[in-house]
Amino acid sequence: MFSAIKRILIGHPLKSYELGEQKINKTKALAILSSDALSSVAYGPEQILIVLVTIGVSAFWYSIPIAIGVLILLTALILSYRQIIFAYPGGGGAYVVSKSNLGVNPGLIAGGSLLVDYILTVAVSVSAGTDAITSAFPTLHNFTVEIAVVFVIFITLLNLRGVTESASVLAYPVYLFVLALFILIGVGIYNIVTGGVSPQLHTPVGTPVVGISLFILLKAFASGSSALTGVEAISNAIPNFKDPAPKNAAKTLTMMGILLAILLSGIVILAYYYGIAPKAEVTVVSQIAEEIFGRNFMYFFIQGTTALILILAANTGYSAFPLLAVNLAKDKFIPRMFLIRGDRLGYSNGIIILGMASIILILAFNAETEHLIPLYAVGVFVPFTLSQTGMMVKWIREKPEGWIPRFIINTTGAFISLIVTLMFFITKFQQVWSILVFLPIIILIFHRIRKHYEAVGEQLRIANRTPVVPIEGNVIIVPVAGITNVVENTLNYAKSLHPDQIIAVYVAFEREDEKKFEEKWKEWQPDIRLVTLHSHYRSIINPLTKFVDTVEHKASESNYKVTVFIPQFIPKNSWENILHNQSSLLISSFLLYRRNVIVTTVPYRLKK
Amino acid sequence: MFSAIKRILIGHPLKSYELGEQKINKTKALAILSSDALSSVAYGPEQILIVLVTIGVSAFWYSIPIAIGVLILLTALILSYRQIIFAYPGGGGAYVVSKSNLGVNPGLIAGGSLLVDYILTVAVSVSAGTDAITSAFPTLHNFTVEIAVVFVIFITLLNLRGVTESASVLAYPVYLFVLALFILIGVGIYNIVTGGVSPQLHTPVGTPVVGISLFILLKAFASGSSALTGVEAISNAIPNFKDPAPKNAAKTLTMMGILLAILLSGIVILAYYYGIAPKAEVTVVSQIAEEIFGRNFMYFFIQGTTALILILAANTGYSAFPLLAVNLAKDKFIPRMFLIRGDRLGYSNGIIILGMASIILILAFNAETEHLIPLYAVGVFVPFTLSQTGMMVKWIREKPEGWIPRFIINTTGAFISLIVTLMFFITKFQQVWSILVFLPIIILIFHRIRKHYEAVGEQLRIANRTPVVPIEGNVIIVPVAGITNVVENTLNYAKSLHPDQIIAVYVAFEREDEKKFEEKWKEWQPDIRLVTLHSHYRSIINPLTKFVDTVEHKASESNYKVTVFIPQFIPKNSWENILHNQSSLLISSFLLYRRNVIVTTVPYRLKK
Repeated sequence: MFSAIKRILIGHPLKSYELGEQKINKTKALAILSSDALSSVAYGPEQILIVLVTIGVSAFWYSIPIAIGVLILLTALILSYRQIIFAYPGGGGAYVVSKSNLGVNPGLIAGGSLLVDYILTVAVSVSAGTDAITSAFPTLHNFTVEIAVVFVIFITLLNLRGVTESASVLAYPVYLFVLALFILIGVGIYNIVTGGVSPQLHTPVGTPVVGISLFILLKAFASGSSALTGVEAISNAIPNFKDPAPKNAAKTLTMMGILLAILLSGIVILAYYYGIAPKAEVTVVSQIAEEIFGRNFMYFFIQGTTALILILAANTGYSAFPLLAVNLAKDKFIPRMFLIRGDRLGYSNGIIILGMASIILILAFNAETEHLIPLYAVGVFVPFTLSQTGMMVKWIREKPEGWIPRFIINTTGAFISLIVTLMFFITKFQQVWSILVFLPIIILIFHRIRKHYEAVGEQLRIANRTPVVPIEGNVIIVPVAGITNVVENTLNYAKSLHPDQIIAVYVAFEREDEKKFEEKWKEWQPDIRLVTLHSHYRSIINPLTKFVDTVEHKASESNYKVTVFIPQFIPKNSWENILHNQSSLLISSFLLYRRNVIVTTVPYRLKK
Repeated sequence: MFSAIKRILIGHPLKSYELGEQKINKTKALAILSSDALSSVAYGPEQILIVLVTIGVSAFWYSIPIAIGVLILLTALILSYRQIIFAYPGGGGAYVVSKSNLGVNPGLIAGGSLLVDYILTVAVSVSAGTDAITSAFPTLHNFTVEIAVVFVIFITLLNLRGVTESASVLAYPVYLFVLALFILIGVGIYNIVTGGVSPQLHTPVGTPVVGISLFILLKAFASGSSALTGVEAISNAIPNFKDPAPKNAAKTLTMMGILLAILLSGIVILAYYYGIAPKAEVTVVSQIAEEIFGRNFMYFFIQGTTALILILAANTGYSAFPLLAVNLAKDKFIPRMFLIRGDRLGYSNGIIILGMASIILILAFNAETEHLIPLYAVGVFVPFTLSQTGMMVKWIREKPEGWIPRFIINTTGAFISLIVTLMFFITKFQQVWSILVFLPIIILIFHRIRKHYEAVGEQLRIANRTPVVPIEGNVIIVPVAGITNVVENTLNYAKSLHPDQIIAVYVAFEREDEKKFEEKWKEWQPDIRLVTLHSHYRSIINPLTKFVDTVEHKASESNYKVTVFIPQFIPKNSWENILHNQSSLLISSFLLYRRNVIVTTVPYRLKK
């Protein structure tokens, strides 16, 4: 039944050689990998204005030069990540670049922050999208958390079905969103150019503003840069592209950069000319749309696609997280379960863990994840800085032909990213300090995991074994709970192996019971030695373990192996298991993990 | 670490022969077993007035004759349960009485409704008590659910420590409550007798009232009878009493009846003379207290002890539920885990299940459990009716000396209980219909469980076995994941048992890998046959299971037993298990439960 449900939800399993069919083309890749970046257009320009409004409406013209700064950073990032894609076509982005050029720990800082960041992406964007929906339908407001969780589960299932299917489903809303904003920007700019917008709405560029400072401008710039989160996703997800993967990824990245630049500058320009001030209840994009179209179909179309893309931005995390996890798992820094491909050839463990972690975040923050946004931005700009510094080092070290312009691009990118990172720490320390605590802990865990895997690997290697002691003989211990067919079945099996000794053990709670049982046993199995143990505390495990220890100790002296044979009856229907005290299961796992014995479970199948 | 926490919370384990010290004397028993019944005084009289007020204030004098009716019922119940205690000194109350005299199904109806009822008792009384607290401290209002859950956990832990300790802790508040009400009633009656209360406050007894009907009176009577819930608890809990248990239990029951009668009639009389009308926000007891004392220390003392006893009423459920469960489990109607005594000699599974079930109820109803009260009352009066009818049948059948007065007592009790039950169904059908759905389902489950246990018992009995086929030889299958020390360890052990055949099985995901492994194996273990299987779907279990099936099918033809030897390495620290795919565990449990093979786990212990 479980597998039937699984089939319906995620589809029939795929064969390994069908992997090629699971690769996606540029159009679909652009949709699923850029939804995070594109969705930031919905809040990035607003972030700039929110900082400037603290000085006054007259400072709004600064949004134009700040947007130009953001565009420069965007260009530097896009060019730089193009270079990363070609230099590291296996994917892994900032983690691989930083690790290979700067060392293991910078790599882990980049990888660790991105890993956490993708979880934040999912939680933050789904919460934001749900918010947009519940604002439109206030009756749903009490169910915000539930709706957000359902969306996460939906996206998780979609991704478990495989990247091709999720791309096909998700491409439409993304392109609709782009279309909607293109119409908005087109009509808006047409109005401005044809003089349909009152020039009194905005202060001219260059107007002197009282109270403006470099600090304020940098803060506004850093806030605006949060629109660039998601740019790195493509560099992590190269393996998902159709061949030639790096080339297709680079083209997709460029396309995303162009789209992002157009939308970002369009919104900033419209906000400036229409004199939009940020408000608590209505977003800037919504204000612009209302100014231009009024509350008609287009307005609701823009609002609807915006809500949708905010939710779908989560999907970028689902594409990038599992592949980043694969890279970390290959290097043994995280559990190797992230390397396993699921039924539909996606890295399902990564997808499931991402979904669960973000649901936990949504529940913990009650779907109010806005104040996680700065944390999330820092989590992106730290790897940005590291990866570009890594590329700088690479160019200096390798000095390939024409390396100087590339070096300049990466240096510019690294420098601006570093400034943005520092601005976040300086201006929003209250919201981002936690990264300084979590990141070292995560890196410590990475190292401990790696150390463990290395120790295990070494111990498993045939060359490195402790000399094998030959096994001289076998002792079998059979814990018995009564005189039943289950026990007889086990004893018959034990006898068939001709061990050197079979000992039956009975744990009695009362003295009378002890004697009675011994007598009955003598009659029933006179040739098998019975040991009865007494338990004051009504525990079977404790006296049994002590007995096993004694036998094991003595047996090991003459290189005998001790095996405990657990008689277990298996009910016909699995629900019936709850009607039986699972003592045999308990005993076998306890002995297996805590004591140096071999455990054999001898099943006796009930027929009704 | 887990056991250290357990030690702190519930204390060190007790030896079985210390059971006698866990018995309780009459004073303590009265406290813990009557808290439920006594607490109903806090709302019983109010229930009568709530019905009468629908006619008008002039009808309030009817509360006096109605209270007399309730007292008659109480007397009948107490006398009847005294007889039950002596007739069935092993405890089990209504369940045992109904089962032995009326048949299995009436017994199960009584037992099932009481089982559910004790869960309701805990949920309802803890919610009510928490409500009283949060009404006093409105800042706590947002945490009602949390507080209620903490109280349930506290009472559960107290009961896990053992009945003696919980009795010692809980006796004080119960007696303080009784003391508080005695003072209230004493002072109130003194005022009335000395003429300190205006006679205009009440309409004289006998005043004709317009609109009164037998239906209304019966409804008021049924509502008032809800104060009698909890009367049966002592008859379930006889085994907890010090010897001579039945005699002590009977004395305690009588004492409880007297206390209950005094408090009940006291409150009704005071309410009548002071002309108290039920109000939504203030309880009747609280109004009386305010009239008599004003808002001084005594008022808050009464309010505080009332809140406390409402919470402690839950404890009656904890004393009675596990013992009722023991009786049902002895008859195999519920899982036998309810028969196991925990570390502190209490039936801990019953205690824990009761705690968990009531927490679920509290969470599901958001600690607003008031409308469960009628359901809870019906759940008590159904077993009342059944047990007394059972006693009637017993007297008629056995006709011991002097049986006629006893028969009359039980007949009166049965008759009044039946009327109360019917009144609940007639007047509050909306709130109690669900019992008509749940009870048949529960009884069906009881029967299915019993059927299962009987089938199992029969199959386990040595006399009833299918003829044993002698085991002619053994085949051992060893699934191998690589050439490692873990595999070598398993192979060495397998060889030491000298089976007829050892087959190593390797599941390959890729063709190349397959060949490479076969070559390496030939070099490493030339004398052990290797079978390689190919898995398109990256599953190990499916191809392995198919192979095991084939081998098993062939082996069984010549009466060979197939055993699967699972090589498993055990990490040094148990947290490290999450770093390894638990495929061996998965494989072993899958094969054990789904296939007819024996499973041996051969551990290889890592040293670092």
